[in-house]
Amino acid sequence: MDINAYLRDHIRTVPDWPAPGVQFRDITPLLQNPRVFRVLIDQFVHRYMAPELRPDVVAGIDARGFILGSVIAYELNVGFVPIRKKGKLPYATVEESYELEYGSATVEIHTDAVQHGHRVLLIDDLIATGGTMMAGKRLLEKLGAEVIEGAAIVDLPELGGSHALRATGLPLFTLVDYAGH
Amino acid sequence: MDINAYLRDHIRTVPDWPAPGVQFRDITPLLQNPRVFRVLIDQFVHRYMAPELRPDVVAGIDARGFILGSVIAYELNVGFVPIRKKGKLPYATVEESYELEYGSATVEIHTDAVQHGHRVLLIDDLIATGGTMMAGKRLLEKLGAEVIEGAAIVDLPELGGSHALRATGLPLFTLVDYAGH
Repeated sequence: MDINAYLRDHIRTVPDWPAPGVQFRDITPLLQNPRVFRVLIDQFVHRYMAPELRPDVVAGIDARGFILGSVIAYELNVGFVPIRKKGKLPYATVEESYELEYGSATVEIHTDAVQHGHRVLLIDDLIATGGTMMAGKRLLEKLGAEVIEGAAIVDLPELGGSHALRATGLPLFTLVDYAGH
Repeated sequence: MDINAYLRDHIRTVPDWPAPGVQFRDITPLLQNPRVFRVLIDQFVHRYMAPELRPDVVAGIDARGFILGSVIAYELNVGFVPIRKKGKLPYATVEESYELEYGSATVEIHTDAVQHGHRVLLIDDLIATGGTMMAGKRLLEKLGAEVIEGAAIVDLPELGGSHALRATGLPLFTLVDYAGH
């Protein structure tokens, strides 16, 4: 079974969304088919069960990163912590802003979400410009944690995010890439 | 082990958030402790493994409902579908609006998320006024599905949501309630 081709067959491309000229990669069909969903999640679970890659905690990025991150954390028997858009977390937080095409965005994490020295797996659904994952990494490092790897289903390498993230020393793991498509 | 007391001990009450006089029930400590997280999720998994309550699909409400719903779906070997705030889903959707204290909100679901006749388990983290869960139920019914139960970690019965939801014929399952607190 060619896992990557199997998963790619269940990603839906929506043309011109959210803006003209954008080919949006919609992962919802991956989630709603029970077999595909299980195959998808197990790609991550099997990888991070390995002792050298096993994290102390999984951090998921708001909101599609929650869908993957919580299952992976449960299966690994570690905790799950959310990284959220600004204004959603009720307790003390640290925050990081990053640039968007127009304007900027800010993400937050609770200050007690991770401990100093924790090895964290950082999860989102897709890496485009990499801004959100970079901000998530900085948040975790502010709290003294080490991000051992960033993981996502889809990489869009032509947008430069995965290259920029790797250039900071962050290893990445993705399942499907759309280079040249 | 008194599961409800154990879980309640790991819910953090944040006073005066998001507005003065509100006691916000923060579930993030439940998620970040590996043992508590597993005990929490297994309350739902064990219940919905029963043949008479086993759903065909789990629907999770944006965004904290994703954290619970995706794990429960994975463990039950069924699909997961997201119900999202308006403007987040790229494909064809149906939508439902509901009243908030000031103004209104709209949620959406992809039109192909569930099939006619599907038995759906609807998941959120907390039931307050019940508006979001009620809108989620209407969305699923618009697509011809049957919502067999609504489930959440926390019920705030004094806000009337769980009463109103049950009055529509929807069974509810919650783990911790804050009546009279």
